[in-house]
Amino acid sequence: MLNAVDVVTADTLAAFLERARAQVDEQLERYLPSPPACPAIIAEAMRYSVFAGGKRLRPMLTLAAAAAVDESHRDRALPVACAIELIHTYSLIHDDLPAMDDDTLRRGRPTLHVVYGDGIAILAGDGLHAEAFTLLAREPVSDDAGVNRRKLRVIRTVGDAAGAAGMVGGQAIDLQAAGQAPGHAVTLDADAVRHMHALKTGALIRASAVSGAIMAGADETTIAAIDAYAGDVGLAFQIVDDILDVEGDPASLGKTAGKDAASAKPTYPALFGLDRSRTLAADCLRRAHAALETAGITKSLLGGIADWVVARKS
Amino acid sequence: MLNAVDVVTADTLAAFLERARAQVDEQLERYLPSPPACPAIIAEAMRYSVFAGGKRLRPMLTLAAAAAVDESHRDRALPVACAIELIHTYSLIHDDLPAMDDDTLRRGRPTLHVVYGDGIAILAGDGLHAEAFTLLAREPVSDDAGVNRRKLRVIRTVGDAAGAAGMVGGQAIDLQAAGQAPGHAVTLDADAVRHMHALKTGALIRASAVSGAIMAGADETTIAAIDAYAGDVGLAFQIVDDILDVEGDPASLGKTAGKDAASAKPTYPALFGLDRSRTLAADCLRRAHAALETAGITKSLLGGIADWVVARKS
Repeated sequence: MLNAVDVVTADTLAAFLERARAQVDEQLERYLPSPPACPAIIAEAMRYSVFAGGKRLRPMLTLAAAAAVDESHRDRALPVACAIELIHTYSLIHDDLPAMDDDTLRRGRPTLHVVYGDGIAILAGDGLHAEAFTLLAREPVSDDAGVNRRKLRVIRTVGDAAGAAGMVGGQAIDLQAAGQAPGHAVTLDADAVRHMHALKTGALIRASAVSGAIMAGADETTIAAIDAYAGDVGLAFQIVDDILDVEGDPASLGKTAGKDAASAKPTYPALFGLDRSRTLAADCLRRAHAALETAGITKSLLGGIADWVVARKS
Repeated sequence: MLNAVDVVTADTLAAFLERARAQVDEQLERYLPSPPACPAIIAEAMRYSVFAGGKRLRPMLTLAAAAAVDESHRDRALPVACAIELIHTYSLIHDDLPAMDDDTLRRGRPTLHVVYGDGIAILAGDGLHAEAFTLLAREPVSDDAGVNRRKLRVIRTVGDAAGAAGMVGGQAIDLQAAGQAPGHAVTLDADAVRHMHALKTGALIRASAVSGAIMAGADETTIAAIDAYAGDVGLAFQIVDDILDVEGDPASLGKTAGKDAASAKPTYPALFGLDRSRTLAADCLRRAHAALETAGITKSLLGGIADWVVARKS
């Protein structure tokens, strides 16, 4: 792990991302239950999706936010980073189901329900969801009252972001907009689309960065700044996702490009056109950097992660 | 709430159950998110299943276990009782899905996915799941280091019971036995059926009682005794469920009797016959009482709840 006060270059960021990804993957393998503690099929199904080559954006934000606050507390943030990735993975498994987005390919591989059936896929998602909270409560192991208080705050933060007032609520609106909630269809204008994304992807991305800051002992002003930063990173992430769906390379995306347009999903390019969408993403990036500067977080890796989110090609 | 040291009669138990149910329902309504914090559809869907007339066995066990340890700490156990009921409800919603048990009727009403569609049903379950852990972390609100330590232990206990090594794992084995996990079918003998039930229903029932004891500040010996008691209550509950499916009154069950036999599920009556199944339930009841007596828990309502679980007709 790099020190937060290092001068940040593209190389430093790349090294941070690579090293942090390896560390997160190693810990995820250690945290996931195995037989005989659980049935083999569920252990296998959970790992199939957890180790499917994800970008690990959320754990990177958790670790970088913790390091920005206090590098010496990064160990405390690692289980939190992993727990949030478990929640993100469970949400992808459930979103891919025929009853939801009906995706058969993710990151270039058949989705979990294609391989194990819908029932086991639902259960693998549920298992990862429970495991995430068990992990947040269990690690870091500590008798320190302050650490325990932070752990409880992180569980509330992550739970709120994952639940009906966050990710689940956003996906529900998405289903309503797609006509998949019988008797409850809605049509979304631009504001409603932004609100849907703020819930569906924004809330957990914000919780990722905020949780890292909490575990590292940030004060409320710093937490608020990192929250604002992550809100814009989350929005930028979604806009860029929508742009890549229009013009991205299917081979590097690992999924079918053009799927959003084909399913008449309300995307940023559909609402604003490609050029204006690129401008909106650039606006997010500028605001994200401004939030960090205002709080005096000028030499962390958070700024570089925001740049990477907008510049990525897959 | 009744005092744990009252002499326990059938009337006392009935009064406790009625009053505790009303209290749990009132708190559940308060804890569940509403618009504008979350989309209306998900708030409605969650309430549809949470207030579907459940027996509230798990919250009763939580409250009775807490009262058995220290009546003055019952307020601390109420949010825990509610959180566990949210997890139980989410599991019923997911189990009823076409991809799992494909049940269209529960407690005399159409199941959630019949009313809202499979997608919203999956999300309502996911929302309740997240909400349960948020609630466990949030309430009881306290700055006391001991209370916070207990809250974290309860989250671990409930998370382990709900996850791959508990409820989710048991349901996965059930799907394998029912041939609903392509390429992973298994045949269960009597021991494997018992193991499946220990995971699928037993783990969360044990966690319900144990969590109440933890929140009330029980010592490790008492926690172990209440765990042993609840293990037998959970097994008895499952055996009686299977018996009622064979000979119960469909009107009072609120579901189709004989469904287990029709789907060739491995049940206790199918494995052992009705008479032997009744004997096995009675054995569980005797062991449950013995566990309480050994730990000196002789005047609590826990014994009466065990009697009720075995004597119930629906």
